[in-house]
Amino acid sequence: MVILGIDPGTAITGYGAVEYVRSRCRALGYGSIRTEATQPTPERLLHIYNSVCGLIDLYSPEALSVEKLFYGRNVQSAMAVGQARGVVILCAAQHGVPVYEYTPTAVKLGVTGEGRATKEQVQYMIKALLDLDEAPRPDDVADALGLAICHALVGSTAKAWQSAREV
Amino acid sequence: MVILGIDPGTAITGYGAVEYVRSRCRALGYGSIRTEATQPTPERLLHIYNSVCGLIDLYSPEALSVEKLFYGRNVQSAMAVGQARGVVILCAAQHGVPVYEYTPTAVKLGVTGEGRATKEQVQYMIKALLDLDEAPRPDDVADALGLAICHALVGSTAKAWQSAREV
Repeated sequence: MVILGIDPGTAITGYGAVEYVRSRCRALGYGSIRTEATQPTPERLLHIYNSVCGLIDLYSPEALSVEKLFYGRNVQSAMAVGQARGVVILCAAQHGVPVYEYTPTAVKLGVTGEGRATKEQVQYMIKALLDLDEAPRPDDVADALGLAICHALVGSTAKAWQSAREV
Repeated sequence: MVILGIDPGTAITGYGAVEYVRSRCRALGYGSIRTEATQPTPERLLHIYNSVCGLIDLYSPEALSVEKLFYGRNVQSAMAVGQARGVVILCAAQHGVPVYEYTPTAVKLGVTGEGRATKEQVQYMIKALLDLDEAPRPDDVADALGLAICHALVGSTAKAWQSAREV
């Protein structure tokens, strides 16, 4: 089972493709989609959309895992993240890939067994679980890999939007 | 010159296509794209995207006019509007249609000449300018027509994201 974790953002969208076989996770690829602040928003969204479509074509994931709506940021930031999130989810929908969402706490719990784990603990566990030489950077990439691992480890009990008809 | 005004939302996305010739506005078509709260978000975004692509194919607009980022709502609502807005802007970018954005105050000013006009005044002027038998409903449709009219009347001085490289 291949899971694509995505942490959407206008400037940096982190991604991580994880294969989960026989209770083990393996990183197929990870990195970030970047756009310049000098680019107009339509071009930035188009670049994110094309890149995510390319990742879905490349890895043929059975699930896409994204962060659940958050509440802590300001309205302008939420709108910007929402725009990037919208094109990522659209891309999954067009390719028939079910979308799952996890709160930051669920990701920490899924990856480390502790919902209040520090960022360093999460990065340490991602590095260990995926047998990486170094912790993935920047945070957006680590977050994307965390989302993919979280779905791999707890996904059997998760509900996709497609099946659960949740909003 | 044809302008497509769009007021994005997950449940209701208002649209209004306005032709502006010899200092006169004419409504080519207007209405709303609706999705059900029981539908999963990926399906809702896909429906909005497909519908807006269809409107662009139908009206071949030279400009798409959307509301500028707002600040008054809560984070969850901003995220949801952002997702719908993202797929609308993506659609315009894919079709090479420049995107312009106007604040609610700019729309009131453009349509009525008064930035603090009431909703009823704006609806009255939209009905008068487009020579409609009835004021367009719901508000999302009136807002979309207002955005299109605003661009028609003040558009020559506006900057598209594409040309102005603004974010």
